[in-house]
Amino acid sequence: MNIPTPRISTGELPASRKIHVAGTLYPEIRVPMREISVHPTAGEPPLSVYDSSGPYTDPGVTTDIRKGLAPLRLSWIRARADVEEYAGRKVEAADNGFAEGDRLVPEFPIRARPLRACGDTAVTQLAYARAGIITPEMEFVAIRENQLRDAVAEERGGQDFGASIPDYVTPEFVRSEVAAGRAIIPANINHPELEPMIIGRNFLVKINANMGTSAVTSSMEEEVEKMVWAIRWGADTVMDLSTGRNIHNTREWIIRNSPVPIGTVPIYQALEKVGGIAEDLTWEVFRDTLIEQAEQGVDYFTIHAGVRLHMVPMTVNRVTGIVSRGGSIMAKWCLHHHKESFLYEHFEEICQICRKYDVSFSLGDGLRPGSIADANDEAQFAELETLGELTEIAWAHDCQVMIEGPGHVAMHKIKENMEKQLECCHEAPFYTLGPLTTDIAPGYDHITSGIGAAMIGWFGCAMLCYVTPKEHLGLPDRDDVKTGVITYKIAAHAADLAKGLPGAQRRDDALSRARFEFRWEDQFNLSLDPDTARQFHDETMPKEAHKVAHFCSMCGPKFCSMRISHDIRAEAREQGMADMAAKFREGGALYVPAGQSEE
Amino acid sequence: MNIPTPRISTGELPASRKIHVAGTLYPEIRVPMREISVHPTAGEPPLSVYDSSGPYTDPGVTTDIRKGLAPLRLSWIRARADVEEYAGRKVEAADNGFAEGDRLVPEFPIRARPLRACGDTAVTQLAYARAGIITPEMEFVAIRENQLRDAVAEERGGQDFGASIPDYVTPEFVRSEVAAGRAIIPANINHPELEPMIIGRNFLVKINANMGTSAVTSSMEEEVEKMVWAIRWGADTVMDLSTGRNIHNTREWIIRNSPVPIGTVPIYQALEKVGGIAEDLTWEVFRDTLIEQAEQGVDYFTIHAGVRLHMVPMTVNRVTGIVSRGGSIMAKWCLHHHKESFLYEHFEEICQICRKYDVSFSLGDGLRPGSIADANDEAQFAELETLGELTEIAWAHDCQVMIEGPGHVAMHKIKENMEKQLECCHEAPFYTLGPLTTDIAPGYDHITSGIGAAMIGWFGCAMLCYVTPKEHLGLPDRDDVKTGVITYKIAAHAADLAKGLPGAQRRDDALSRARFEFRWEDQFNLSLDPDTARQFHDETMPKEAHKVAHFCSMCGPKFCSMRISHDIRAEAREQGMADMAAKFREGGALYVPAGQSEE
Repeated sequence: MNIPTPRISTGELPASRKIHVAGTLYPEIRVPMREISVHPTAGEPPLSVYDSSGPYTDPGVTTDIRKGLAPLRLSWIRARADVEEYAGRKVEAADNGFAEGDRLVPEFPIRARPLRACGDTAVTQLAYARAGIITPEMEFVAIRENQLRDAVAEERGGQDFGASIPDYVTPEFVRSEVAAGRAIIPANINHPELEPMIIGRNFLVKINANMGTSAVTSSMEEEVEKMVWAIRWGADTVMDLSTGRNIHNTREWIIRNSPVPIGTVPIYQALEKVGGIAEDLTWEVFRDTLIEQAEQGVDYFTIHAGVRLHMVPMTVNRVTGIVSRGGSIMAKWCLHHHKESFLYEHFEEICQICRKYDVSFSLGDGLRPGSIADANDEAQFAELETLGELTEIAWAHDCQVMIEGPGHVAMHKIKENMEKQLECCHEAPFYTLGPLTTDIAPGYDHITSGIGAAMIGWFGCAMLCYVTPKEHLGLPDRDDVKTGVITYKIAAHAADLAKGLPGAQRRDDALSRARFEFRWEDQFNLSLDPDTARQFHDETMPKEAHKVAHFCSMCGPKFCSMRISHDIRAEAREQGMADMAAKFREGGALYVPAGQSEE
Repeated sequence: MNIPTPRISTGELPASRKIHVAGTLYPEIRVPMREISVHPTAGEPPLSVYDSSGPYTDPGVTTDIRKGLAPLRLSWIRARADVEEYAGRKVEAADNGFAEGDRLVPEFPIRARPLRACGDTAVTQLAYARAGIITPEMEFVAIRENQLRDAVAEERGGQDFGASIPDYVTPEFVRSEVAAGRAIIPANINHPELEPMIIGRNFLVKINANMGTSAVTSSMEEEVEKMVWAIRWGADTVMDLSTGRNIHNTREWIIRNSPVPIGTVPIYQALEKVGGIAEDLTWEVFRDTLIEQAEQGVDYFTIHAGVRLHMVPMTVNRVTGIVSRGGSIMAKWCLHHHKESFLYEHFEEICQICRKYDVSFSLGDGLRPGSIADANDEAQFAELETLGELTEIAWAHDCQVMIEGPGHVAMHKIKENMEKQLECCHEAPFYTLGPLTTDIAPGYDHITSGIGAAMIGWFGCAMLCYVTPKEHLGLPDRDDVKTGVITYKIAAHAADLAKGLPGAQRRDDALSRARFEFRWEDQFNLSLDPDTARQFHDETMPKEAHKVAHFCSMCGPKFCSMRISHDIRAEAREQGMADMAAKFREGGALYVPAGQSEE
């Protein structure tokens, strides 16, 4: 098999160094972080930040997509002695849409036998958490969430709307949140390459980036690079929404090379298997697809089991009907057969599959609003209540669950979404798309939705699914993906600040100090997108000398408020302004002559 | 004088037609609006939207920047018979920074004698409103705000946080809001080219775009085009923040060609007049600059009179000190002279000038926070209280007032800003810069601030000052200005929707209907930026045929949820789904056999 050398984005970000932190309960675990160094004049230690980019930004590791990433979790999984290797389902031509010859994407070179739970055991993080077991995955995410900040309790600002954010994240806290169903650690036992992460209201807000081949075939390098590019800029999970041919083989290449959880919408592949005719879908085809994907290592499934026959009519008078693909497919099936959804009726069997591999549920919101006019309507909330029922069923089977949310929602209706979700779904983590706060700006929907995402993240949403500038218009290219990811990192971080997450403000403060001290390089390096910040600066002030200039192009030296502030600070120090100020305040509005004020 | 032919952006936006609506009280007024037509298959009338772009988008008007725009307000002003023409202040070399020869921007070709109030009369919209007079300006904005929607009371959604939004905007409502000081109509009697607009919490949220020559000289065409470009995309006012040479002449070119209110920060020009040495500023130089600009027709002045000597020490321990240019200049002056601010001490004389020309106050927040760490601190709120005092003084002189606000503020601290401002400043309109909700994304601060802007607009902020992607890094180019304006139109509109402003959702609904009916052209034309929407769509589906395709490149025909929704809708109609649904609901979770459900 001759594959051209992959063009994958590797290498560290500016002034950054990959570090690894060992565990205490599990000394062998190595939690990756990114350490950003600042100029010596700052007299500050480097800042360590959360790092979703995987080994691709580790100069100590040579990655080869034909080999895949190291299976770091394998020993952890084996050590639990509750799984068995087995032959696994045979890959069929239908799995790749009957692609043949040079239209068929080559299989991933290495073929491992899949793992599954022994007998009826549940091998989910939820089952372990309930049994009081702190897994390596749990200690890993605990260390990861703290970003090396001190364990001391900080003074907490923010408004958390009833969340239970800890001063410091301990492995036991992670276990208790997972046990309570308030957080999930998507981690299929067949995805050992995964660097565990957690999704929950009491942890850092996460973001997801979507990708996928469309009808047209693209190379494995391209597909893997899409994922690598998204995590390089901060995507915490990636959903593979591929349709068309080669879905099976492409997904294998992606999972084997992904350090982040991979989510899918299995109904898409099932529909391909029945030639794209929704009415021809059957439980058997769907079930077979779930096992196929579980064996490959998919970490979470979007399942639209909340769309039920009696809800379909509620969408008929909407402005934009049903806008979820999975939702519309199921609605059509229900309507055509005049039957209840097979996803709903076979939900317990789906749970039986998920608990065998620890595939987390992402219960899909098939009836989410596709326009401002349809937000928070009868159909949407009827489905949400059903998702609540399903959550309890999944929990009864020790399955991890998160709930998907809208969509298009004006600002004043966002909070109701969060409150109803917490109530209906018993605090299972919420995972929303945006929401978009207006319909009138196609081409800028990363912004219309970034506004809603920041707000719902503040209110308690655990993960935000990004939206790119191409939403509603076309397929995102490389730049669109980066813009979408950065926009959502902004929304997630703004939410962390507003929730008062301990340590969240450290990066803002470090960057603002750099700004105030004219440490331009530090200002670039501490930002979410150093390349763009530097490029924008250099467009007006290219010279290297300007990187130390005590002013910038916007005002020039004469008008630089920060420069003046430094003069004021200097004078203030001399004159003991504080006392003087006190005197001025006593004097109230009146001017106090210098003579007196110096008494 | 030989000026090259100006390159000014003119012409209508796609599918748009400029229309004019006549007044009732004043039949001679012609209120501009933009009528967007949709495809005949829609069976909908054209949508009329607010239009800030002026005659530049009116094919019936030939503009020539050397002649300036038609002085449409002149007859209205004259008719009030309370102003007199006079020689006016002589332009001095210092007004243009002593620029000479070919470094001197040519004077605007036409030199009109300025107007001022006769004797001690106040010629402000506030004075007229208090006297019970509905001016043409007031009827103009009333018609403009309604955007031709019907006068019927609509069902009101939204949460308005105690605002008093009317079902329909009448001229009398405008008068009463202006009289109460809750809204302003910035309209200098020496800016007759102005198409009046209103800034107030009970009206559409407005946006401002900043522009300005920097030290380097640029041509008049460039300067005028900056303004024309900003209003073409929706800027409601423009602030000229020019520094360096040629400030006077450049401003004259801008005002004579501007249909929107022009704001300035007079201290910038005053500082130029004293060679850029803050300590050398005097009341006399400042006073002279106010008169110079008032005679030219500046509609609102940013005055940093709230920065007082005793507040300076409160900024000494901030992370980013003082970040307002005007604020830092005044702080330095106060500190150096150990004196109270001359702006504060001479505030009543400033009012005397403003009431003579109807220059509105924009009371500057010189101590606004420049970082998340400094938000809502002692210095910021101390100044806000002083701005409240000054508001009452200005009102006592019949001067119109709005209040400037921050800055950098995390989401959970935004509401407090709005509440304190309403309380301290007696409901005078609030005008904020962003606020930016995090410091960590230079290069994307239009987004970090767009989030805060949408929220504070919802809470009651009347005007949002845009931030471009170049904020903190460099000078915005043409594309940055457009991105900043569109981002802020999104924030303002999202706020209008959330406040429940009657009619605000009409555009969202029209665009969403177009989206659901695959009317691609309508979807582009109804959007805030038709060019970008079309371009993004065409990148993946260039063919004209695709403009009528009943699917898009994202999912393709097989997966198009909206297409499926249409099938569902069709089937539903046949089967009388509504009744069936009722039966299903009676049946609860259980599936009701088709037989029964058809009884």
